[in-house]
Amino acid sequence: MRSGEAGFADAFQALLDAKREASVDVDAAVRAIIERVRREGDAALIELTARFDALELTPDTLRVPEGEIEAAFEATPRDTLEALQLAHDRIASHHARQRPADDRYTDALGVELGSRWTAVESVGLYVPGGTASYPSSVLMNAVPARVAGVTRIAMAVPAMRGQLNPLVLAAARIAGVSEIYRVGGAQAVAALAYGTRTIAPVAKITGPGNAYVAAAKRQVFGKVGIDMVAGPSEILVIADANNDPDWLAADLLSQAEHDDAAQSILLTDDATFAGSVAQAVERQLALLPRRDTASASWRDFGAVIVVDDLLAEAPALSNRIAPEHLELAVEDPEAFLPRLANAGAIFLGRWTPEVIGDYVGGSNHVLPTARSARFSSGLSVLDFMKRTSILKLGPEQLRALAPAAVALARAEGLDAHARSAAIRLNLA
Amino acid sequence: MRSGEAGFADAFQALLDAKREASVDVDAAVRAIIERVRREGDAALIELTARFDALELTPDTLRVPEGEIEAAFEATPRDTLEALQLAHDRIASHHARQRPADDRYTDALGVELGSRWTAVESVGLYVPGGTASYPSSVLMNAVPARVAGVTRIAMAVPAMRGQLNPLVLAAARIAGVSEIYRVGGAQAVAALAYGTRTIAPVAKITGPGNAYVAAAKRQVFGKVGIDMVAGPSEILVIADANNDPDWLAADLLSQAEHDDAAQSILLTDDATFAGSVAQAVERQLALLPRRDTASASWRDFGAVIVVDDLLAEAPALSNRIAPEHLELAVEDPEAFLPRLANAGAIFLGRWTPEVIGDYVGGSNHVLPTARSARFSSGLSVLDFMKRTSILKLGPEQLRALAPAAVALARAEGLDAHARSAAIRLNLA
Repeated sequence: MRSGEAGFADAFQALLDAKREASVDVDAAVRAIIERVRREGDAALIELTARFDALELTPDTLRVPEGEIEAAFEATPRDTLEALQLAHDRIASHHARQRPADDRYTDALGVELGSRWTAVESVGLYVPGGTASYPSSVLMNAVPARVAGVTRIAMAVPAMRGQLNPLVLAAARIAGVSEIYRVGGAQAVAALAYGTRTIAPVAKITGPGNAYVAAAKRQVFGKVGIDMVAGPSEILVIADANNDPDWLAADLLSQAEHDDAAQSILLTDDATFAGSVAQAVERQLALLPRRDTASASWRDFGAVIVVDDLLAEAPALSNRIAPEHLELAVEDPEAFLPRLANAGAIFLGRWTPEVIGDYVGGSNHVLPTARSARFSSGLSVLDFMKRTSILKLGPEQLRALAPAAVALARAEGLDAHARSAAIRLNLA
Repeated sequence: MRSGEAGFADAFQALLDAKREASVDVDAAVRAIIERVRREGDAALIELTARFDALELTPDTLRVPEGEIEAAFEATPRDTLEALQLAHDRIASHHARQRPADDRYTDALGVELGSRWTAVESVGLYVPGGTASYPSSVLMNAVPARVAGVTRIAMAVPAMRGQLNPLVLAAARIAGVSEIYRVGGAQAVAALAYGTRTIAPVAKITGPGNAYVAAAKRQVFGKVGIDMVAGPSEILVIADANNDPDWLAADLLSQAEHDDAAQSILLTDDATFAGSVAQAVERQLALLPRRDTASASWRDFGAVIVVDDLLAEAPALSNRIAPEHLELAVEDPEAFLPRLANAGAIFLGRWTPEVIGDYVGGSNHVLPTARSARFSSGLSVLDFMKRTSILKLGPEQLRALAPAAVALARAEGLDAHARSAAIRLNLA
């Protein structure tokens, strides 16, 4: 679509409104599973794992023994281990900068105020099984929790027919996670939230999962904290014509290969260049092992937007798209930055393909999807901490502030509130 | 209950597990309301407001005119206005300290990384009608949004039979909020989330409400951001025997008067003193206008816990309770602080009644309830901002990091990911 043409506003709005995910209603099934795990504990976990994962467990084999984690680590090729270690170290050092500072101060009245941050005591990390079982996601969830100071991280990962991805175990070992259970689905979420004899309950559950896992997380929210429920991947590439079309085609396809419902958008100021990128996409599609997925995503949700003036028009359009990933493949990306507000992560310049952020950039790859970058942020150390307000008055400070508190309490019809301040000053 | 006695562990666990809120299932009714507002816009708002609030509106009278806000402000008693202004100023200056700093740095490899914070563009603030229509809540929601830099704040407040609480309008004016709609319930939440001809949609909705409002917020979550769904108030008072029983009784009752399902707990090391507080509660109950509510709350959910050693035992119990409000009415409250992790707000010493925090302390009174202080925090400036990750590589940095990214992408079976890095180095 072209920004100058009639109908652009409607076409763009339709792009924003396009529903990419088929919503599967699994709420009732998930509710029944959670109830069973609450009632029957380990026995339910074992029965459901036999049914859904074709794996026979006992309370003794629910947990993956240290030896199995160690063996997976030892069996991992050296270059993969080194890559995981590099990713781990870069994620750890970037996230260490996110640790919030406590604040304690005394104001002009002598009132002491403060904000005090503490780590969530225990976290459950869900890791999907099958082809979506990514060691990089283990690092992206476990490392911020560790940096936050979470003392207990319990991981749950389904082992279909007993198979666990050894790279997931290796990544867990590198991240210092040793409490791993071979359970998955809504039953794993229920066990982490409510606890069983074998699995102690946690205070917060994070990590991606299928529709059952997502529904279970929503249902246990309140009993425990949860992270965002992530949707399919997205990338917006803002590019001038001075790019190699093949490079940008590769970037668009890196998100398209994730999911049929992923979305890749090119926003450029040169229609001819846009055509070259589209041709490069077709060429490269043929080379991809996951070409079926990438083709479906590009065909159904891919888009090319041509504007007249990139710097003048692209930021406002990008802010409405609120992309999970935003590449600025332009000469002066810094000029765009002050105009951009809604994006999970921004990749500046022609030499920063988004995939570096997926693995080894250091920033987190768990990012807001489905336009939620308008109101939310990627996973960070803050997601594994909470803040307590601190207030401390002496008699003088109470004398100074109580009259206003009493006036407002009375105005709100809350007399016991008013009494609580007044009684200390013999005003009640 | 006494910590030394047999059965204490079970009794304490039962206290934690007690379900205080009757959950009303209004999901289906709310879903129908949201669908109608999405389909019919203003017409649905007008029809539903006539039905639920006994108020006839037109598209022109949905919004409260400036003159009406001004008149409410002018009609507010001077001491109430001054109290609101004091509260506003103290909340604003405390919350200004919560503004997060952007971070941009270059690491040893020459990779530029960063975190950039921007304000949510538009926020909808829900304010309940009736007796729960609190001007203090207007300030506690609007001021952090303003401090964050939110440019548009739209307020929705139901006007039963046309009546609006003038103090709510006065508080809005003091907080600089002038876009106010006289609509409430699920229909107001739907309008803020999806927009109508008169009400432009917002990116995030905050503020308390009844079961319909809470259900509507949950249902529109994803389309927009929401704050926590707050439950009934709670206070835990940790007190030694050197307190005036009447002071602590007043503090316990200040929460009990909020709601039949509120919870007030006294934790002390002196059984005789505990008895004196309980007697003072009974005496003061008789004096309270809201004695029915406070009596029901204290009878059904109030608790007195006696331990042998306050400093040794109270922090661990408090961390399990994870109270919304925690008073430390002890000689050396600072000694307790390092051992406390899970609490929305802590009030130190005998001269800091919790109600100061409700109004004029400066910290926020929107705090995590129902044990959610184990994993979440009170409302803050961060709730009205979001963080974007920044990454910038040059050719050298890409050469240094690409091999690890390619190795991990291939290990995860994501070849298009690998290509996106490799193609820039002629490795694809």
